[in-house]
Amino acid sequence: ELIAKIEDLFPADITSILYELNGQESKYLVQLLEVKVAAEIISDLDSDDRIKFLKNFTSQEIAVYINEIDSDDAVDILNEQPVRIREEVIALLKDRVQARYIIDLMHYDEDCAGGLMQKELIKINVKQTVTECVEEIRRQAEEVEKVYSVYVVDDDGQLLGTVSLKKIILAKRGSKIQDVFDSDEIVSVPTYMSGEEVADIMQKYDLEAIPVVNIQGRLLGRITIDDVVDFITESAQEDIQVMAGISEDVEEDDSVWLLVRSRLPWLIGGMVGSFLAAKLIEQFDSAISLMPTISAFIPLIGSTGGNVGIQSSSLIVQSLADKSGLDTTFGKRLKKVIVVALINALIAGCFSFACSFLVDNGDTMLSLTVAISLFAVVMLASLMGTLTPLALNQLKINPAVASGPFITTTNDILGYGVYFLIVYLLL
Amino acid sequence: ELIAKIEDLFPADITSILYELNGQESKYLVQLLEVKVAAEIISDLDSDDRIKFLKNFTSQEIAVYINEIDSDDAVDILNEQPVRIREEVIALLKDRVQARYIIDLMHYDEDCAGGLMQKELIKINVKQTVTECVEEIRRQAEEVEKVYSVYVVDDDGQLLGTVSLKKIILAKRGSKIQDVFDSDEIVSVPTYMSGEEVADIMQKYDLEAIPVVNIQGRLLGRITIDDVVDFITESAQEDIQVMAGISEDVEEDDSVWLLVRSRLPWLIGGMVGSFLAAKLIEQFDSAISLMPTISAFIPLIGSTGGNVGIQSSSLIVQSLADKSGLDTTFGKRLKKVIVVALINALIAGCFSFACSFLVDNGDTMLSLTVAISLFAVVMLASLMGTLTPLALNQLKINPAVASGPFITTTNDILGYGVYFLIVYLLL
Ligand SMILES: [Mg+2]
Ligand SMILES: [Mg+2]
Ligand SMILES: [Mg+2]
Ligand SMILES: [Mg+2]
Ligand SMILES: [Mg+2]
Ligand SMILES: [Mg+2]
Ligand SMILES: [Mg+2]
Ligand SMILES: [Mg+2]
Ligand SMILES: [Mg+2]
Ligand SMILES: [Mg+2]
Ligand SMILES: [Mg+2]
Ligand SMILES: [Mg+2]
Ligand SMILES: [Mg+2]
Repeated sequence: ELIAKIEDLFPADITSILYELNGQESKYLVQLLEVKVAAEIISDLDSDDRIKFLKNFTSQEIAVYINEIDSDDAVDILNEQPVRIREEVIALLKDRVQARYIIDLMHYDEDCAGGLMQKELIKINVKQTVTECVEEIRRQAEEVEKVYSVYVVDDDGQLLGTVSLKKIILAKRGSKIQDVFDSDEIVSVPTYMSGEEVADIMQKYDLEAIPVVNIQGRLLGRITIDDVVDFITESAQEDIQVMAGISEDVEEDDSVWLLVRSRLPWLIGGMVGSFLAAKLIEQFDSAISLMPTISAFIPLIGSTGGNVGIQSSSLIVQSLADKSGLDTTFGKRLKKVIVVALINALIAGCFSFACSFLVDNGDTMLSLTVAISLFAVVMLASLMGTLTPLALNQLKINPAVASGPFITTTNDILGYGVYFLIVYLLL
Repeated sequence: ELIAKIEDLFPADITSILYELNGQESKYLVQLLEVKVAAEIISDLDSDDRIKFLKNFTSQEIAVYINEIDSDDAVDILNEQPVRIREEVIALLKDRVQARYIIDLMHYDEDCAGGLMQKELIKINVKQTVTECVEEIRRQAEEVEKVYSVYVVDDDGQLLGTVSLKKIILAKRGSKIQDVFDSDEIVSVPTYMSGEEVADIMQKYDLEAIPVVNIQGRLLGRITIDDVVDFITESAQEDIQVMAGISEDVEEDDSVWLLVRSRLPWLIGGMVGSFLAAKLIEQFDSAISLMPTISAFIPLIGSTGGNVGIQSSSLIVQSLADKSGLDTTFGKRLKKVIVVALINALIAGCFSFACSFLVDNGDTMLSLTVAISLFAVVMLASLMGTLTPLALNQLKINPAVASGPFITTTNDILGYGVYFLIVYLLL
């Protein structure tokens, strides 16, 4: 009775219930469900939860579920498993087509088009008729859950175009595919294209599925929008973690040890930077001893440099990610950055002159030193914030790194250097 | 000839060309194109570019394009225009159904389900047959570009369920909708639901379109995944800008003035915080004068506080956004945060003891002061980083604010307070 109630829920909702149960309980619950529903639940689980969950199952039991899961998700699940289990499961699969699909997909990098695609799709030869196409949809109705379009290929499997289901419904049953399909509107992607580019293309053309082809243009699979939505969400999450100086993909519910470990590299990294800064400041001990107010402006220099650096780099990171606009040339970009930086630096300099005058009780020379240093720090931080993500991007490193503790630490040290240089020159 | 070539491109690609032309040139180009293509291009433009672009057109000309655009996008475009033009265009629309759609959608907030939905959809009465359904699809083929499912309603317009196009293709033409539709799988959303929640639901259930209903359950419209993808991308972008301390939605290609203005609030805000810190540090002038090395550790305290605060808050912001897992209770959350903070604080404290010993040339007492302060700062910053986003979320403010300059500035001041208190107590 309880099972009947649970089976009435959406699989995605049963997944939420599983998170509340322990390993044995959840295995028990899942085994009571229909295999198809259970399979969907297993493919819905978070990767780390699934690894734990599947520890309770034998390869034989896993194979039963893998049989029912779309090839893209099946590969993701198997790739999380140790090689031995992976091979056992593939060998035990009843559905040999599924086994071949999985072996085909297994070797693609998970963040490129090949790693996002599934083999399940409906394709039809251009010489066939709409009636045959409907028969093909019927034959594969179980296998291909979501059909948006039918892919039209020639005798070599070359992708020629698509027919939407709407067109199939409206076409006369006897008509030839040749006469109804869209041949001028094929957007397809190669297996090696990065997930980001696939997402950009699907977003630009408002697609719910995109065919994946090999270099010869042969149809290999398709990527559906639900997986691209997941990819987009995960990438955004990753960028935010990089900006926050968290160096592993963690969530609040991960283990204490993982949480500590993910935060340590930048905690220590930032500290090392600060100790270098300390070593630098220590050189000016005698100046500070004579005029201790100098040290009161250290936070101003450090935090302004950090803030400006992150503001600058995040704008660059954003326009690197957004391919919809035009590419700005390096020269143009730099010119604009410098103009914006100049204005901000002037405003910051004047504002700081006024404020420091209040703090240092009217010492004009010190106020001037602070103002000039701040001007230089804003300019320098803007440049660093602009050049660092561009350089990282060239080096194929995620440019969002330049919007995190890396830039604040670098700018801190640079800023103190400038400040104490100007202190040395002017005071 | 050139026009023929351009018309062969996808509308989204013609949009990219427009970005290279000036106002008059782009108007000329768009007017040479078919009205349907031109309309799609106009709805593809970035909001700020479109506002500039449409300045070159009369209300009469705008109305011709608005006629052809899906109701959701038509409303977005009109809402960017001054009220006078908005009303003129609506009055001039040839398609009076479109005018009614637009008036219906106009009053919804753009970030809720009502603001994301379109009126274009295929609906069918549950008493009708599959043949009638196909006729309805044919009748609306022009009007409803993408059809994924047909919505099934009763005589009152109440949403009862859906039929996928795949099912329609496979059903016998004469069969009753009653017998083929899915009645147990309706996921629908109310007009007032937030865009974030709509996105979560569509992502969770892997939907390409979701029906929107009013409180009585009457079908009002649908939201398609392409608009949700845009919404997700924009929200992620917004969070990153908030984290970077940029206070308006700007892009690199916006005007210099806008770029300067968007950065000023947090540039100045951070400076005000630093001057408060300066005022605080100044109180310890005599101590610093006696032992200037104290000031060398100011950057350490400030940047560690900032880094830890952002690490902590970004984890909380992330789990506030991710509704797929279970809600952690406040107590559990706090306990875990404190354990992680304790470990990190201990590591940071020990590490800093060693390093400061090197910097201050073996002054055990100063090294101890720095280590204890750092321990306290890491603990305090972790707590602030945890509590601030939770508090902001309660206040319905975007919790990502707590991962930006706000938290670094607050933690800086707190940190210096702690440091100098401990300096005062121990030295
Ligand atoms: Mg299969
Ligand atoms: Mg994959
Ligand atoms: Mg789009
Ligand atoms: Mg999939
Ligand atoms: Mg999926
Ligand atoms: Mg997890
Ligand atoms: Mg800082
Ligand atoms: Mg219309
Ligand atoms: Mg809207
Ligand atoms: Mg999903
Ligand atoms: Mg739309
Ligand atoms: Mg759109
Ligand atoms: Mg813009």
